[in-house]
Amino acid sequence: MRTLTAEEIDWISEGAAVLGAGGGGSTYLASLALKRLLRNGASVQVATVDEIGAEAVGPVLSGMGAPTVGIERLPTEGRYRALVEAVGSTLKTPAEFVAIGEIGGGNAITPLVAAAEAGLPVVDADPMGRAFPELQMDTYMIEGLKPNPLFLHDGKSVVVTMQGIEDPKTAERYARALTWAMGGSAGLVLPVLTGAEVRAHGIAGTLSLTEAIGRAMAEARRQKATTAEAILSVVPAGRHLFEGKIVDVVRRTAAGFARGTITVEGLGAFRGRQLEVEFQNEYLIARDREAGSGSALLTVPDLLVLLEEESGQALGSEAVRYGLRIHVLGLPAAQELKTEQALSFVGPAAFGYEVPFRPIEGDLLGRPDAVGARG
Amino acid sequence: MRTLTAEEIDWISEGAAVLGAGGGGSTYLASLALKRLLRNGASVQVATVDEIGAEAVGPVLSGMGAPTVGIERLPTEGRYRALVEAVGSTLKTPAEFVAIGEIGGGNAITPLVAAAEAGLPVVDADPMGRAFPELQMDTYMIEGLKPNPLFLHDGKSVVVTMQGIEDPKTAERYARALTWAMGGSAGLVLPVLTGAEVRAHGIAGTLSLTEAIGRAMAEARRQKATTAEAILSVVPAGRHLFEGKIVDVVRRTAAGFARGTITVEGLGAFRGRQLEVEFQNEYLIARDREAGSGSALLTVPDLLVLLEEESGQALGSEAVRYGLRIHVLGLPAAQELKTEQALSFVGPAAFGYEVPFRPIEGDLLGRPDAVGARG
Repeated sequence: MRTLTAEEIDWISEGAAVLGAGGGGSTYLASLALKRLLRNGASVQVATVDEIGAEAVGPVLSGMGAPTVGIERLPTEGRYRALVEAVGSTLKTPAEFVAIGEIGGGNAITPLVAAAEAGLPVVDADPMGRAFPELQMDTYMIEGLKPNPLFLHDGKSVVVTMQGIEDPKTAERYARALTWAMGGSAGLVLPVLTGAEVRAHGIAGTLSLTEAIGRAMAEARRQKATTAEAILSVVPAGRHLFEGKIVDVVRRTAAGFARGTITVEGLGAFRGRQLEVEFQNEYLIARDREAGSGSALLTVPDLLVLLEEESGQALGSEAVRYGLRIHVLGLPAAQELKTEQALSFVGPAAFGYEVPFRPIEGDLLGRPDAVGARG
Repeated sequence: MRTLTAEEIDWISEGAAVLGAGGGGSTYLASLALKRLLRNGASVQVATVDEIGAEAVGPVLSGMGAPTVGIERLPTEGRYRALVEAVGSTLKTPAEFVAIGEIGGGNAITPLVAAAEAGLPVVDADPMGRAFPELQMDTYMIEGLKPNPLFLHDGKSVVVTMQGIEDPKTAERYARALTWAMGGSAGLVLPVLTGAEVRAHGIAGTLSLTEAIGRAMAEARRQKATTAEAILSVVPAGRHLFEGKIVDVVRRTAAGFARGTITVEGLGAFRGRQLEVEFQNEYLIARDREAGSGSALLTVPDLLVLLEEESGQALGSEAVRYGLRIHVLGLPAAQELKTEQALSFVGPAAFGYEVPFRPIEGDLLGRPDAVGARG
């Protein structure tokens, strides 16, 4: 176990925006809230998957809601402690750790806030290795764990408990409708797991990866190098896909999701080409506009990262706008997301695209090839 | 305490449709489900408010959802037992009675089903003396009891618990959104009360009133008298407002409510006049079409009852259609709904109408005038 410093939280915050692949909500407000907690004497302990007890239980925690709403609401102090306590009281056994529900975007920070508020360690693992728009899109659900129990906190006083949910799409539908009624964002626990289950079905090391990415980006700024190079130094299987200026953004917030299409006009080595990026909270598909629909350059679950050239920061889909100069990276998804079973939850077809998944070779965490080992 | 017979359940079913004032959902399917339970050996015990212990606790139970959806879904066996058990397990003390959340429509029967399933008595009282479209429109909420805890059952396997709700409109908003996601109807507990609270803040005797109305209607049919006269014999302060043919129904189901306007062309003594009835699940305002908007003949919370001439049955707003010949009765609301505080929850303005409340003199239950005694 190790204790996070304020500097490490800044790195995690910056790295989480990269793994958010456009989604997961703002890391900025969540990390402000976390650093305020630390200044007031709280601390965040990080445990590896091997450091938590096999039979200990802990909530898988995240924030739910559309990023375009999330950026307007600061997390309420104490809401996550209330969530963690509701878990303990419902299950009649206190939580011993907090697990991360989504390592991308603000949802990387949310569980750290919960861990600090509840005085519990956070586990260095998550079930996505990125951000995804729907609840069933994670390795816990893909690998058949029950979406039950589910807890929501409205950020004011209300804790909601759902028991008896039998399939993850029902969890998604009920939680989404209620989150919307709660004003568009809510604290979420889904599900509650044992240490053994996190170890068997989570993707270990993603919090450390996030921190390593953010650290490399900070280092690159000091050395006047680009953050794109920094990210590719941590994830060497990644690729520099495009460079250009955003010339069009078509967006709509529908049923709790920020959806749309971004058009980027090439610059530098990419002059004369246009890139189109489809997003549903997260960036999902990138294609060369001239080359027809079969020619996707990158397909979900692989990660699309849009870096704003001036700041070098990763752009959330809520922040893209006309005129920004960007670099576009493609990173390979964690191996766990590339099994046949996983692709039926998180491949292009799961988002309504008729293109096949064309994987970038390699693994997000640089592990030896493990496809199919668990699926 | 007394045990209900199948015949008494039929009377309650018919009387509840009258007190539904157009809303509360169908009594037919709920009473079928109840009689099936009785044939299988269950029974329903009715307790007066004085027969339950002051410190005993029980859920206030009803079905939530738009009638136009409710009529298509038969209650799932066992869902209400699951709800009652969830209450006991959350509060760590078993329920000792079931209280009625709404005496109008199918919601008069739903608590009887729950009582039969859970083997608990049902209390002869409710907080409306009719049906209303929203959760905060009842004497428990009007008189300041907390809308907390709240339980919902989706009719399949899911039980939802909400704790920490501080105002009834939040309860309404969250429960409505979730009910909609559940397919449009759900079993609801809101709130859980002690026997003393039911006695202090409920309207005692409304289940018996429902039964007396249904019994008089059945008797009238045997004697070839009209059900309109039968109802007015039980509620003598009521009035025969209109008679005619439905010539227009404009309706829309929006945000979980069936809303619309019914136009009735006068017949018999009312020939040459037109009546307009506004509904939002329940019938809320009746006005003479010629006489301008200030001239409402009946205003909510007083009850509008539409009786179909041929069957003599009360018509739910989901069943009104062109060509039906109807009688329209106005019944005075229970006194508890006519205090200034109550009218701010259930008067015409609470439904968006700018007409003043013009009460029909008297009390639904024929009690000596008690206005203001509790408000």
